[in-house]
Amino acid sequence: MKLLHGGDYFPEQWLTRPETIEEDFKYFKEAKINTVTVGMFAWSILEPEENHFDFTWLDQVFDKAEENGMKVILGTPSGARPNWLASKYPDVLRVNERLEQNRFGGRHNHCFTSVNYRERVRIVNEKLAERYGQRESLLMWHLSNEYSGECHCDQCQSAFRLWMQNKYGTLEAVNQAYWNTFWSHTYSDWSHVHSPNHLGEMAVHALNLDWRRFVTDQTIDFYLHERAAINKYSTDIPVTTNFMADTEHLIPFQALDYSKFGKIVDIVTWDCYPAWHNDWETEADLALKVGFINDLYRGLKEMPFLIMESSPSFVNWHDINRPKRPGMHKLASTQLLAHGSDSVLYFQMRASKGSSEKFHGSVIGHVPPERNRVYQEVASLGERMSQLDGLVGSMKQSDVAIYYDWENDWAIKDIQGFSKTNMNYHHTLHDHYRPFWRQDVNVDVITKNNDFDGYKLLVMPMMYLHSRDLLAKVQAYVEAGGTVVYTYMSGMANETDLVYDGGTIPGLEDMLGIMISETDVYYPSQRNQVKFQDASYEVHDYATVFETTSAETLAIYGSDFYQGQAAVSVNHYGKGQAYFMGARTGDDFLSKFYGELLDQLTIVGNSIAKSSDSVSVQTREDSEGTRYYFVMNFSDQVQTAEVPQGLIDVSTGLPVEATLALQGFEAMVLTSK
Amino acid sequence: MKLLHGGDYFPEQWLTRPETIEEDFKYFKEAKINTVTVGMFAWSILEPEENHFDFTWLDQVFDKAEENGMKVILGTPSGARPNWLASKYPDVLRVNERLEQNRFGGRHNHCFTSVNYRERVRIVNEKLAERYGQRESLLMWHLSNEYSGECHCDQCQSAFRLWMQNKYGTLEAVNQAYWNTFWSHTYSDWSHVHSPNHLGEMAVHALNLDWRRFVTDQTIDFYLHERAAINKYSTDIPVTTNFMADTEHLIPFQALDYSKFGKIVDIVTWDCYPAWHNDWETEADLALKVGFINDLYRGLKEMPFLIMESSPSFVNWHDINRPKRPGMHKLASTQLLAHGSDSVLYFQMRASKGSSEKFHGSVIGHVPPERNRVYQEVASLGERMSQLDGLVGSMKQSDVAIYYDWENDWAIKDIQGFSKTNMNYHHTLHDHYRPFWRQDVNVDVITKNNDFDGYKLLVMPMMYLHSRDLLAKVQAYVEAGGTVVYTYMSGMANETDLVYDGGTIPGLEDMLGIMISETDVYYPSQRNQVKFQDASYEVHDYATVFETTSAETLAIYGSDFYQGQAAVSVNHYGKGQAYFMGARTGDDFLSKFYGELLDQLTIVGNSIAKSSDSVSVQTREDSEGTRYYFVMNFSDQVQTAEVPQGLIDVSTGLPVEATLALQGFEAMVLTSK
Amino acid sequence: MKLLHGGDYFPEQWLTRPETIEEDFKYFKEAKINTVTVGMFAWSILEPEENHFDFTWLDQVFDKAEENGMKVILGTPSGARPNWLASKYPDVLRVNERLEQNRFGGRHNHCFTSVNYRERVRIVNEKLAERYGQRESLLMWHLSNEYSGECHCDQCQSAFRLWMQNKYGTLEAVNQAYWNTFWSHTYSDWSHVHSPNHLGEMAVHALNLDWRRFVTDQTIDFYLHERAAINKYSTDIPVTTNFMADTEHLIPFQALDYSKFGKIVDIVTWDCYPAWHNDWETEADLALKVGFINDLYRGLKEMPFLIMESSPSFVNWHDINRPKRPGMHKLASTQLLAHGSDSVLYFQMRASKGSSEKFHGSVIGHVPPERNRVYQEVASLGERMSQLDGLVGSMKQSDVAIYYDWENDWAIKDIQGFSKTNMNYHHTLHDHYRPFWRQDVNVDVITKNNDFDGYKLLVMPMMYLHSRDLLAKVQAYVEAGGTVVYTYMSGMANETDLVYDGGTIPGLEDMLGIMISETDVYYPSQRNQVKFQDASYEVHDYATVFETTSAETLAIYGSDFYQGQAAVSVNHYGKGQAYFMGARTGDDFLSKFYGELLDQLTIVGNSIAKSSDSVSVQTREDSEGTRYYFVMNFSDQVQTAEVPQGLIDVSTGLPVEATLALQGFEAMVLTSK
Repeated sequence: MKLLHGGDYFPEQWLTRPETIEEDFKYFKEAKINTVTVGMFAWSILEPEENHFDFTWLDQVFDKAEENGMKVILGTPSGARPNWLASKYPDVLRVNERLEQNRFGGRHNHCFTSVNYRERVRIVNEKLAERYGQRESLLMWHLSNEYSGECHCDQCQSAFRLWMQNKYGTLEAVNQAYWNTFWSHTYSDWSHVHSPNHLGEMAVHALNLDWRRFVTDQTIDFYLHERAAINKYSTDIPVTTNFMADTEHLIPFQALDYSKFGKIVDIVTWDCYPAWHNDWETEADLALKVGFINDLYRGLKEMPFLIMESSPSFVNWHDINRPKRPGMHKLASTQLLAHGSDSVLYFQMRASKGSSEKFHGSVIGHVPPERNRVYQEVASLGERMSQLDGLVGSMKQSDVAIYYDWENDWAIKDIQGFSKTNMNYHHTLHDHYRPFWRQDVNVDVITKNNDFDGYKLLVMPMMYLHSRDLLAKVQAYVEAGGTVVYTYMSGMANETDLVYDGGTIPGLEDMLGIMISETDVYYPSQRNQVKFQDASYEVHDYATVFETTSAETLAIYGSDFYQGQAAVSVNHYGKGQAYFMGARTGDDFLSKFYGELLDQLTIVGNSIAKSSDSVSVQTREDSEGTRYYFVMNFSDQVQTAEVPQGLIDVSTGLPVEATLALQGFEAMVLTSK
Repeated sequence: MKLLHGGDYFPEQWLTRPETIEEDFKYFKEAKINTVTVGMFAWSILEPEENHFDFTWLDQVFDKAEENGMKVILGTPSGARPNWLASKYPDVLRVNERLEQNRFGGRHNHCFTSVNYRERVRIVNEKLAERYGQRESLLMWHLSNEYSGECHCDQCQSAFRLWMQNKYGTLEAVNQAYWNTFWSHTYSDWSHVHSPNHLGEMAVHALNLDWRRFVTDQTIDFYLHERAAINKYSTDIPVTTNFMADTEHLIPFQALDYSKFGKIVDIVTWDCYPAWHNDWETEADLALKVGFINDLYRGLKEMPFLIMESSPSFVNWHDINRPKRPGMHKLASTQLLAHGSDSVLYFQMRASKGSSEKFHGSVIGHVPPERNRVYQEVASLGERMSQLDGLVGSMKQSDVAIYYDWENDWAIKDIQGFSKTNMNYHHTLHDHYRPFWRQDVNVDVITKNNDFDGYKLLVMPMMYLHSRDLLAKVQAYVEAGGTVVYTYMSGMANETDLVYDGGTIPGLEDMLGIMISETDVYYPSQRNQVKFQDASYEVHDYATVFETTSAETLAIYGSDFYQGQAAVSVNHYGKGQAYFMGARTGDDFLSKFYGELLDQLTIVGNSIAKSSDSVSVQTREDSEGTRYYFVMNFSDQVQTAEVPQGLIDVSTGLPVEATLALQGFEAMVLTSK
Repeated sequence: MKLLHGGDYFPEQWLTRPETIEEDFKYFKEAKINTVTVGMFAWSILEPEENHFDFTWLDQVFDKAEENGMKVILGTPSGARPNWLASKYPDVLRVNERLEQNRFGGRHNHCFTSVNYRERVRIVNEKLAERYGQRESLLMWHLSNEYSGECHCDQCQSAFRLWMQNKYGTLEAVNQAYWNTFWSHTYSDWSHVHSPNHLGEMAVHALNLDWRRFVTDQTIDFYLHERAAINKYSTDIPVTTNFMADTEHLIPFQALDYSKFGKIVDIVTWDCYPAWHNDWETEADLALKVGFINDLYRGLKEMPFLIMESSPSFVNWHDINRPKRPGMHKLASTQLLAHGSDSVLYFQMRASKGSSEKFHGSVIGHVPPERNRVYQEVASLGERMSQLDGLVGSMKQSDVAIYYDWENDWAIKDIQGFSKTNMNYHHTLHDHYRPFWRQDVNVDVITKNNDFDGYKLLVMPMMYLHSRDLLAKVQAYVEAGGTVVYTYMSGMANETDLVYDGGTIPGLEDMLGIMISETDVYYPSQRNQVKFQDASYEVHDYATVFETTSAETLAIYGSDFYQGQAAVSVNHYGKGQAYFMGARTGDDFLSKFYGELLDQLTIVGNSIAKSSDSVSVQTREDSEGTRYYFVMNFSDQVQTAEVPQGLIDVSTGLPVEATLALQGFEAMVLTSK
């Protein structure tokens, strides 16, 4: 088993220039590229007219790959439909949130429900599976591309109504779950159900949540439809699609619940595009965010994932697309491996000459490889990856889990009340991740997919939408000896965003040993303090006013009308303990608090000492107990780090000294074997 | 007669849980709640299918209220239509400013012209009036809710054309009034008339003005239609609807001309939601804005008004919804009484469990009343209000009037020219109100509804749109001995926004004793100065360049090409005097200027001395001459204030000392009786 | 031949008040107004009903003009259609970028393709030409007004498809030129071609470019259609339309390629509205931008142009519309003459009383001329202009040319990659113009219309889109001894925005003697330096990493991974030299660099010495060698300037001293005759 190195390749753009394709494979070989992904967006080449297929060029790509000992990931073309298809079957195009019928254009502009679209996708997918399903070089099926978006057409409305009938059974149940009496929104006929849209209703929160759930389910349904077509001729090859992150902070992709979708794909793969070298954060700050999301996506299936796309240097869709500095590509790619990837794949293998992505980073760019620094850095990484095949299948072992939930995320974005402009759920998740990151403590970011067993510490920031099932699971975990941390804005609403009687989900206050009176919010410039062990720490945005019942007060508020009241508490519950952090603080308090908790729970990190927080040390371990240490310097200065003794540098095969010295942007990989 | 304490109550949300409603009335009683408003938005409960009515639950609410000695304000349900109604009669939904047909959703999403909507509203209103018109507990009819918005459907276009025919008679008259020759906009057929919209015309200012006038008239017409249905069975109970304010600065609601609408309702009621404890202004700064708008709405009918909605603590629709600090609720509510309210009513009596307003402040919140600070503060106010029934019907007596005009406001927003980004009409109104507020001088904010007789001082800031009738009225007032203050940007345009020949309405320059040459405007960072009595004050945004004819120069410009020319002047006119303030200054000059004017006109304030401007002292007086003093401390520190001797504290019944000491956010009510 | 002084006049607004028109002509005469432009937007007066024409009022205007010895520019009314026309032929209205059918309203809201619109325009234009084509006072035809905008209706889609067929012949050629294989955008039927729109495709860059080209061509086609109607009865009178600038920085109008349109009109005329006295730049900074764009528009036909519109004082469509300070009108108007205008015409001669432009500056404003400063300043300019008739037809002589290209501009705006938020093409053009402006060196801003012969220096900033034809032209110029300066972001893409193989247009690197590796971009706060002759200059936004082959290195980078590599180079090529400026710097480096280049190329400026950069000296020269010097002080302080000896002040007829002293905002005109 090999780490995969390669990526998205669109040779159909150069069919009139076969020497270009020849040249590409020569360069691939030199850079130790072992995998290409082809076929995505190629529909108009594969099927230039309805039911007229042309696979010549794709046959040749397989041939070339096999000649060169490379593997092929075969994409289905549904991410962009041909003009003829949209002309003949206009219903394949989406209806947008203003209920306007889209015209042909862009990618991802197709209705997932459209009978016509599904039929055309079935036909082309079957053709591909029939022809290529048995090719020896076929490594994986890659369905469509970055599934996303939603459609408000009549077919989708019907599907949504059906989905709702399946979920609730009766309109009465929907009306109760949605609290539809409010503002006379009661449905008295199923035809009254309609997707949230800018011309009608956007403020029924349960409807918004269900619509997002439906969009996830319908997207998965479309994925399964695509997969069924593939499976007709190809059943032994893994099938997947590529996931994404959102915003420059690399937060989980918001439009789809990947904790559901992750269970469906055979392997999680995703597209990772951090804006390295920006001017609003250090590379180390950004590395933390990259670490967080990889720790999350690894947990979706609790197995190594694949980076399906990344850029060899810059992208083209940030506002400012800065090239990676020398060394950064190897460092950044090593981080992906460190957090559980078994690949570094790229978008794109060769830069296109025209249209919107021509200036996206690529292995082979417009400037020829011989004098192109980007290509040289890719080749250097290829060399490293060829030494790391032992890594394949190994996992991170973590004592700490941070809980994330997509539905909670959606509900928080919809909250009408409190400090809407400062909800900052993702910022808070990063804040609670940071103390562990700084101390090189492995963390799993987990979701409803994961068990809590085996974790010494479970952190649940801002779990506003909180099901009874989840509470039972947490209670069992704590009763059995686990330690949990809850925060402000927790346990307020059920799965259809109805507030629990009393303001908090029954059982939570009991477990925490507290009684909550109100949630104070601050305008941006307003502050309070928590007093903890003789020091004072700033509070902003949120402060829960509460009394302890059975809990012990750990910190108190410094001012305002609840001065002196508990701000942080801990309760003994079963064999475990349940912490409540009532206020939003800065990193100073969180570091102090979690530092003490790590000591108390005897959780240790991967490093012994280091010259700077900009160094990160992560580990993976294979089933035989061999451990890999990834020592990564995210500063542009020389840094040192101490790691356990007896490790070997995989690039030299020699033992390393007690104190490692790393150049700016250098990453080392060590092994215990 | 009692002050009303209570508010909007939606028990229809808990029909499956009757114990909740039982509990509610117990808590109401404890908190001295004496009034509930019910029925708004309840259409889908009242008429779950067309022509099938169910009043069981509403009967029970009346029963419960009467058992508890409470009064009921009965709302009509037209603020939100049921799904079945919109499905069957799609024309009841609005067409928006992009001429798109809205879908079902939200509130206030109905065409005021729709024949179908009017018919269904008539039917349900008649049913309500027939059934409840004679209930002893029925205090008032509350039609719909917060009338607002506009519709661009074909029925509305027809109504607009008819309205225009009634107003102008001929197309020729319209063309002349609109100056339609410009850009060939001449109407040559009535069908050419169309509402301003984003796909067509937005820049014919007279059309924009007339459209706003039509929207006000059509809204009133709809109100009258609702009222006629009520009056069929209920003629002796007052009828009203709730008005609103706009923006975080609590400016007059912009979409409707309340000086027209105010004449139609039996009593003015409105919904007051200041963002207390924000971080861009002090509580005292905000209190000034609250004072201003209450002084305006009281004047609409020159009688006490009702606060129909307010929040016991926070709202849910600000960006940041901060709870009121302890004491603030009593203080803020006392201010409403001080400025002329005979009620403190809330939205809402019990927080809903779901949908968009579940986190809006409420008397009974999600956290049970026993440990809910908000409920305790409401109960404390209930106690105070029970001691103040003598207040009912009493009025503020003012020597100073500030003039506000909705049509002028609309016209100013449309001005193409000068400093569009710094028109700041409302800011200017507050600026001219502040010197009186600081000195605790009672002020009436008046409109075209009010007479000028009896005021010693009339302030008319930025009266850009200025009718000849208004000028005649001002002239008569000044001739008879009154004092008027005009400012820059005054008297430029007539009622259809045509510029007067010569640039200023004939007669105004004569009354002011000046001749205006031009209006200079400044970019935001540019400044001039006025020199007044040996001091210099900064000028920004606007400076009128003018010459005095018969007027006396009071202040001159400090720089620029009109350095040394008059900036402020006064003219003797009849028995009175007419001031002109040519430049926009800061509070320093305005305080100085109005301070001298108050002395000169022997206008005195309600306080004698106070330790801070954050204390406000307002008075109300009943028909027998009993005067109530409201002494309110809008700072969180202890403050002192001196008021006339011989007053009694209504909460103790004891005389108060010469110097009152108030805790942070404390309000006292004193009486001369 | 006279300089034209006058402008847009809309007497049709006062037909019911003939005395107003009488008065106007009296005032015109006093202010030495010699030209009026009439007829624009008068359609509903000229043709109040279909095929019913009324020319009475227009006859009278001609009569009045002729009585007063004035000339008339006659406008066609197509800039705004009457209501009756839009009602009867709805297809004359535009379909917008969201594919919504516009309603009647605004100006410029008509489809240029509409058969109905063209027919109605033909008829009214012919009527005008027939009636007025032979009037002795007719000076020029002014077609429509400020052609702009685009339409997405079906007629336009058809026209666009035809245009594309004419250009490319086959769909295959289009697909190749557009790189349509990318994302399966391949056209397989001509019906697939559609304009870029917000509901469909916006990211096919070649399509965007071709759409802009089509819009230009279709606008020109409409112009020609209008002209043909005129020419039926009037062939000897010049025909034109008025061009515009864009944004507060007065950049070239973006929606139309004036280098194409300029060749069609008989004389270039344009509307110049700088925001004098703003608070983000000095008057001198703004004067530079005014100079730049006038130097560009003069070059479109290489002959003097006309200022068709300008404001006597303020406008009404800026955010803040500040009046010109005393003297500024004469100064600003003199600058227009200095850069090649043979007119100062105004919008508008009399301010309208209503609608959107009533507060736009005008010769006769709302305040009567007798006490209106604006009118006095206009009259003072009229006096000066009457002394300058010798100027008519004279031209600026320049040794320096800066190259600008509309298509390059469009392509740069579309670039997906690099620093999208800091492309700043126009800012860069101004930066490269500034060193010459400061030294009073005449500059021509040239386009594809112009020859390079005769220029000693050719500056080509950011020529991203670069045709092979242009390169051949530059190569020939340099080979023959010319000096050219290229910058970062040059020569990357061809005319359909396909990246050239190798990343740069073949031949450019050879001419420059360099080899480009990559283009680094910086986030806003990031910096590098160039080291040039012992000094260091800051670099921001862009830095090209390149090696010299035959070129000489002039400056090197100060830091980052390419520290010490060439940043600026020069190559000997043929008899000339080719400079490459790899990095974006501030004015410090550009001044130094171009200062040395001017010395080396022995290019001299118009001034010898001056007390401040806020003084500008420009020259025009007639065919007999008489040179006019315009010495302009853009500061509000007294400044001095030295000009060559032996010049005469045109206003006094007397020789001037060696050192001129100018008052704040004063402009002098000197002559060598």
